[in-house]
Amino acid sequence: MATGTLHVVGVGPGSPDLLTVRAARLIESASVVAYFCREGRKGHARTIAETYITEGTHELRLVYPFTTEIAVEDPDYQRGIQAFYDRSAQQLADMLKQGQDVVVLCEGEPFLYGSAMYLFDRLKEQFATSVVPGIAAMNGCWSQVQLPMTHGDDVLCVIPATLPEADLTRWLQQADAAVIMKIGRNMSKVRNALVQSGRMSDARYVERGTQPDSFSCPFDECGETAPYFSLVLVPGRKGVR
Amino acid sequence: MATGTLHVVGVGPGSPDLLTVRAARLIESASVVAYFCREGRKGHARTIAETYITEGTHELRLVYPFTTEIAVEDPDYQRGIQAFYDRSAQQLADMLKQGQDVVVLCEGEPFLYGSAMYLFDRLKEQFATSVVPGIAAMNGCWSQVQLPMTHGDDVLCVIPATLPEADLTRWLQQADAAVIMKIGRNMSKVRNALVQSGRMSDARYVERGTQPDSFSCPFDECGETAPYFSLVLVPGRKGVR
Repeated sequence: MATGTLHVVGVGPGSPDLLTVRAARLIESASVVAYFCREGRKGHARTIAETYITEGTHELRLVYPFTTEIAVEDPDYQRGIQAFYDRSAQQLADMLKQGQDVVVLCEGEPFLYGSAMYLFDRLKEQFATSVVPGIAAMNGCWSQVQLPMTHGDDVLCVIPATLPEADLTRWLQQADAAVIMKIGRNMSKVRNALVQSGRMSDARYVERGTQPDSFSCPFDECGETAPYFSLVLVPGRKGVR
Repeated sequence: MATGTLHVVGVGPGSPDLLTVRAARLIESASVVAYFCREGRKGHARTIAETYITEGTHELRLVYPFTTEIAVEDPDYQRGIQAFYDRSAQQLADMLKQGQDVVVLCEGEPFLYGSAMYLFDRLKEQFATSVVPGIAAMNGCWSQVQLPMTHGDDVLCVIPATLPEADLTRWLQQADAAVIMKIGRNMSKVRNALVQSGRMSDARYVERGTQPDSFSCPFDECGETAPYFSLVLVPGRKGVR
């Protein structure tokens, strides 16, 4: 029996009509749909894709062993998360070996910090794969707040807020346009870096972009805490045509 | 009479099924569709969106006064292109004032080097606007060649090949992951910068990603010339999970 194909499918930033036509069709015709989620939760990628999942589709929930209980720097986190990705990949491999195609749903764009990459990395040698791009969170956010990002020769830097404050500051100083991802607990670091780099006045904060409870404001008006689904946009500096 | 709404719609990198569901629906129901094109050509955005344009849709062609005949650095280029964007914006304004909604098609992602930004910039104060994100060329390309770009804390830099060689080299040295856009005539500069930054061995060249005549190879195996629709991907360097 032929083995199945692993489809890694980006479901975009939040709004169900921001999936691509290809992603929507693949999900609609999938016999198995897999996705990461937290214990007792529906799973964010699954919520976004919900309208496209048809009755009778087998759903494979990949439940994180922990989320924020352990710090990312803790060796236990690394060991625990790697073992989790190993187990999840094995679950998919078992289905693929039975000849089943598997669609893995991934928030935003799979190859830009997407967790589904860790499954792809583990399975790509052994199985046929396809990757369907998704609208990245940043694209969804800058479209929603109607903020053109790069004109002409602007360089865009996509920067994780998890970096040390000095690195954040340096990147913001150099970048023409910048997106700061993974804000979460790093708000005060991001604030300091925006001030030190002189980019605060142009920075826009966007929370849950394209989702129903979305919120946006100039960064210097936002609070001290941010949910996981938030980012900061700093538009480019070059002249417009 | 109420004025119309300007919809700036990303049509993605090339494949018709990589438009979002929202973009497809907007184009299908549009009474006016506008797009940039070259004299005597169909227009690339129009070609991508073709399957979604219905009979009876009014098509407004915005024909570039020149494309590669004048160098971008030439003051005549700047004057000519600005006058062209002014005229194009005026054409859209005339339709919007008559109460017509206008859908402007834009290759890739409108706010990432998209020409439609120059219309948006001119019309946003005067008319209601909506912006629909598109799959950016880079997302389409890295998905097609199945190259995960950013793991963990990788910084991604999106760099126009039009920059001076020393700047290209410096950006490539600093970036964890990099995308070089706007290759065109800048191939030798890009090659030198990849060698000088030590990133050549990881660099992948992708031409017309997701389009029917797409082509990809390691950068050091590719030729001396590149079409406009080409880019270079340098994946991130950080450890995988």
